[in-house]
Amino acid sequence: MSFHNMWAELLPIGRSSASGGYRRFAWTAADADCRAWFRDQATSRGLTYEVDRNGNQWAWLGDPTAGDAVVTGSHLDSVPDGGAFDGPLGVVSSFAALDELRSRGARPVKPVAVVNFGDEEGARFGLACVGSRLTAGQLTVEQAHRLTDGDGTTLPQAMEAAGYDPETIGPDPERLARIGAFVELHVEQGRALDLTGDAVGVASSIWPHGRWRFDFRGEANHAGTTRLADRRDPMLSYAETVLAARREAEHADAVATFGKISVEPNGVNAIPSLVRGWLDSRAADQERLDTVVHGIEKAARAHAEAHGIGLDVVRESFTPVVEFDHALRDELARILGRDKAPDLAVPVLGTGAGHDAGILSGTVPTAMLFVRNPTGVSHSPAESAAEDDCVAGVLALADVLEGLACR
Amino acid sequence: MSFHNMWAELLPIGRSSASGGYRRFAWTAADADCRAWFRDQATSRGLTYEVDRNGNQWAWLGDPTAGDAVVTGSHLDSVPDGGAFDGPLGVVSSFAALDELRSRGARPVKPVAVVNFGDEEGARFGLACVGSRLTAGQLTVEQAHRLTDGDGTTLPQAMEAAGYDPETIGPDPERLARIGAFVELHVEQGRALDLTGDAVGVASSIWPHGRWRFDFRGEANHAGTTRLADRRDPMLSYAETVLAARREAEHADAVATFGKISVEPNGVNAIPSLVRGWLDSRAADQERLDTVVHGIEKAARAHAEAHGIGLDVVRESFTPVVEFDHALRDELARILGRDKAPDLAVPVLGTGAGHDAGILSGTVPTAMLFVRNPTGVSHSPAESAAEDDCVAGVLALADVLEGLACR
Repeated sequence: MSFHNMWAELLPIGRSSASGGYRRFAWTAADADCRAWFRDQATSRGLTYEVDRNGNQWAWLGDPTAGDAVVTGSHLDSVPDGGAFDGPLGVVSSFAALDELRSRGARPVKPVAVVNFGDEEGARFGLACVGSRLTAGQLTVEQAHRLTDGDGTTLPQAMEAAGYDPETIGPDPERLARIGAFVELHVEQGRALDLTGDAVGVASSIWPHGRWRFDFRGEANHAGTTRLADRRDPMLSYAETVLAARREAEHADAVATFGKISVEPNGVNAIPSLVRGWLDSRAADQERLDTVVHGIEKAARAHAEAHGIGLDVVRESFTPVVEFDHALRDELARILGRDKAPDLAVPVLGTGAGHDAGILSGTVPTAMLFVRNPTGVSHSPAESAAEDDCVAGVLALADVLEGLACR
Repeated sequence: MSFHNMWAELLPIGRSSASGGYRRFAWTAADADCRAWFRDQATSRGLTYEVDRNGNQWAWLGDPTAGDAVVTGSHLDSVPDGGAFDGPLGVVSSFAALDELRSRGARPVKPVAVVNFGDEEGARFGLACVGSRLTAGQLTVEQAHRLTDGDGTTLPQAMEAAGYDPETIGPDPERLARIGAFVELHVEQGRALDLTGDAVGVASSIWPHGRWRFDFRGEANHAGTTRLADRRDPMLSYAETVLAARREAEHADAVATFGKISVEPNGVNAIPSLVRGWLDSRAADQERLDTVVHGIEKAARAHAEAHGIGLDVVRESFTPVVEFDHALRDELARILGRDKAPDLAVPVLGTGAGHDAGILSGTVPTAMLFVRNPTGVSHSPAESAAEDDCVAGVLALADVLEGLACR
């Protein structure tokens, strides 16, 4: 099946007719349809199909147990109202790259596999990369059992409802030990390639990244009758902190975002008792990230203390910088640049987004390829990639698989 | 039944054990319990009990049809997690004032009634004073039929489920024409009486009051990978506007509050596509209110335009200034001050809160009494009034009823 036909089959699954975006959340009906599609792609090519103990799907060309395997793939789930490319482009391109290898007559001397990691986006249970984290032992079984969605359904209940056995989840070091290299292709989530004019790039690192919850506690009161002088309004401290986050990020060439908020009682005529805002911040290195977050917290505390507002800041998650394997990264750059003049060498770039590749990089030599995103928009229905660039991505991935597995 | 016993019977109804606040929303089980309490109070005193076509409850001493009636009362419903006093203090004090008249041996020569207006707070259907608005013809039947709660239940469906006939709702001019004066006693929702050191005051006016919805529209994008320069983040314009609201209100000695917000997609790692904030603003007169709201809107537009954010501002509701009937107000001040030296005269004060009395004032001579609230807190479980002040309120209301109805 061609890239075009694979893409056309996936497109309608989990798409909201209202937003045009995708709602492919882990262990839902849309997720099951994506998984059925993956299985069909594997079996129709005569690949060996497996589901691992954490619900990740694998399609093997060659002996899965032989070792030193070259694995590629990504994920099929989405954020709420996400775009079509984030995740699926990597999985579709992986199967298309296997087809390209076959049409070239290239014969792998190592096992090659395509993987679909479950629940990469964390849209349902609030934690990203659950499938790869469990496999790599970066999420314990106890922690996984405590994950709960907005309706109170736990991760084990959701897996069981989807027909998977939640009793088997846990670290899978034997599986990872059989992998010699993991390469994830992904649509770029910024404009670096658009600015350099390249269709495909290689990842250098993933920025360190954290999420912090800011709880501003004031006093609920009547919005019409409470004098300004008598108020303890936490919305004002929140607003100051949102603006401080932008200033601090600008100074450090980083990013900082308040994109989620929860207000109590959230009434039009009520001064809030609680404004809870979530900060997402990332920077090129740890020192810059610390500077940004400390600056934001300092501004928040200064305003809160001056206005009688209580403030708790809780770090809810943190991922240190990920430096991809230098030897593998250089090998990819060499493979992709081999027929090019030096000034046409493939660009090597950092990214602020987390990926399963980042999780695996602690255990397995790991690399990433990015495909140009002309507007840089992602996690939105407006996310896009040109068809020519997608084809360039497939050919680059085929070059990489040929270079790594066929010599 | 004494004030104390009436109060003790009402206290447990609709009280949240989690917050300690009240959740007495229109046409719910808690509301039905409050209504049963009202009916018991009426019948146990031998008063004529009626429910009008809009579901408001009435308890009559004397002939309801005789005309020139003196009516007192308030409401029993609450905002989410509201206090015990806002509404119920007026209803309990009304029955207690009737008991006080009887114990004094005062004989009304006009009909006297206690009323419980339905759905004053608008907590369930989003519009305040539904019972009095319908009666006064300030809410059309068509508009009332379109009112819907958060679960999609319409007002007629909710009334029917509570055992009331929604077919009868509509203006009730004959009923209002029989009222010579309406006096509502209410806990003060500010600290004016606390600052003057008085237990009871008389209302002069209700400030003009409006609600505006600010829709800031940007572009959803990945919070980790989108360069600051490429963002159109509506949360920043919202934050600027929250701070502008405080500044403008300070300048005009008014109030302005952003207490309710809705964000899309409201994800930790997503720049929002939409931030919707609701402004509540009130001022002593129309000119000041216009100045405040224009100032806030100007600041919002300036920031939005400079940052590529779309902005729609919609006035969702507006109530012009209510000047209570001057003759009745002066009569109350005379009655309550008759035994006092001039410098101990009862204070006359404005308020920023809306009331059923404000709705009725367009049709019926209307006045209000306020009882001291030591912290000024309302619409919160922390709302309070001292027992001595509540008793002073009952005696003042009894004086007023005696002065208006017994001569």
